[in-house]
Amino acid sequence: MLVIKIGGGRDLNHAAIVEGIAQLWHEGQRVVVVHGGAELTNHIAQQLGHPPQFITSPSGHTSRRTDKKTLEIFQMVYCGLLNKRWVERFQQAGVNALGLSGMDGRLWVGKRKKVIKALVNGRRMLIRDDYTGTVEQVNNSLLQALLDAGYLPVLTPPALSYEGEAINVDGDRAAAQTAIALHAHTLLILTSVPGLLQHFPDETTLIPYIPAREVESYLNVAQGRMKKKVLAASEALRGGVQRVIFADGRTSTSVQDALAGRGTHITHIPPGEKHTAEAIP
Amino acid sequence: MLVIKIGGGRDLNHAAIVEGIAQLWHEGQRVVVVHGGAELTNHIAQQLGHPPQFITSPSGHTSRRTDKKTLEIFQMVYCGLLNKRWVERFQQAGVNALGLSGMDGRLWVGKRKKVIKALVNGRRMLIRDDYTGTVEQVNNSLLQALLDAGYLPVLTPPALSYEGEAINVDGDRAAAQTAIALHAHTLLILTSVPGLLQHFPDETTLIPYIPAREVESYLNVAQGRMKKKVLAASEALRGGVQRVIFADGRTSTSVQDALAGRGTHITHIPPGEKHTAEAIP
Repeated sequence: MLVIKIGGGRDLNHAAIVEGIAQLWHEGQRVVVVHGGAELTNHIAQQLGHPPQFITSPSGHTSRRTDKKTLEIFQMVYCGLLNKRWVERFQQAGVNALGLSGMDGRLWVGKRKKVIKALVNGRRMLIRDDYTGTVEQVNNSLLQALLDAGYLPVLTPPALSYEGEAINVDGDRAAAQTAIALHAHTLLILTSVPGLLQHFPDETTLIPYIPAREVESYLNVAQGRMKKKVLAASEALRGGVQRVIFADGRTSTSVQDALAGRGTHITHIPPGEKHTAEAIP
Repeated sequence: MLVIKIGGGRDLNHAAIVEGIAQLWHEGQRVVVVHGGAELTNHIAQQLGHPPQFITSPSGHTSRRTDKKTLEIFQMVYCGLLNKRWVERFQQAGVNALGLSGMDGRLWVGKRKKVIKALVNGRRMLIRDDYTGTVEQVNNSLLQALLDAGYLPVLTPPALSYEGEAINVDGDRAAAQTAIALHAHTLLILTSVPGLLQHFPDETTLIPYIPAREVESYLNVAQGRMKKKVLAASEALRGGVQRVIFADGRTSTSVQDALAGRGTHITHIPPGEKHTAEAIP
């Protein structure tokens, strides 16, 4: 079992990613896809006159402000435009893809942050109409039933709160929770960089291997969006996933190259030793 | 088995519809929901600088022009915004709703019209980049599996062409095909009018009953969007559905009232006689 998270960068080679996943699928591999889309969401939010806003926590951490209107734009882009684009591409590649948001069938359920502390123009504020949270439960039986019936699940945020509200969640961390729930051997995260870089953005400083027990010490090496991916990797490995790979989604053979060793591999077993669980189930 | 098509009019009482369907669901009735959304799509297409366009066939029939950009806006509104709104409302009512477009899992597959003849400024044109079609196949086994597992399927266009392309299809006719495939006893179509009116828009001229064998003669009575609904009703009845109801989705007890006899009922058996197949399966 393999969970593949496809980033939202517009420079990814979408056709190559679909081809790579379709090849695994036709070889009999069980795959679940999770996709992002933050870049396009910002663009369309601008067009709809509701540009993205960011808030800063008292500790200096910046995150997206997700009021109800932002969440609806997010749903339009993630669940409507992008999810259906991925489903269409997979269908054209002969894979019977089925797109779901985390809300559907209570696929991803978690806690909504009801109050967010933020610094706005230097003043401490409490924000109560924000719709964000973290995935805590994954509907494993729904995914297994779809896989058993021959469908490729193509998943996207938002998730559902315990109160049944749509909540924005981080896609990488949701993918990690999904990989844990499915007892996946590998979580592959495709992005617009070759992997984790020691000195971002210098691509010659790629870190090819990180022992699983040391992954958290790399949280400080990671810059920007990559921090959440390292956090997701750490959660996945602690939850039983054997291998997390950060790899370049821009190349023409991204999926197979990553599985063969390219990118940054984070594993319990050093590379070169055999990953027996990788065989087709 | 009951298929309920909810129109896209913004004056529908959404909370009441959800409550009515949740009541049926908790009584053990098997239900599949199909929803529309043309009104909001037109509004958002305007905002995104791509206002709706209509084309006229040589025979004088007007239809929506669906180029690729229009189709993507359609997906954003139907699959993203509206489908997830319905899923959220049902989840909050304690019903484990699961939203799918007709593309997902090849739920609705049909033929794309590859060339459309149209009159543009009085000149006959052939339009080749239109993405519309008609549902010919319904993935019955997917819907039955979801119902068996306790999920309420909430379905929306677009469908998928045989070539794997997203195609815009009429929601009422897709609901009719779904009802046929599921061997549904009843197809309930909720709209912003009390039913089929002899003299639109005079609501006092409601037609309470139409014998199934006469439904096609009412195609000329129906005005505007109602024509497609009468066509859908005719297809459903010919396909084995026992009863089609057009009812008012604006009231506070729309679903139960319609099933109890309000609106326009089109059946093989005159009203008053018992619909035995209506009992919970």
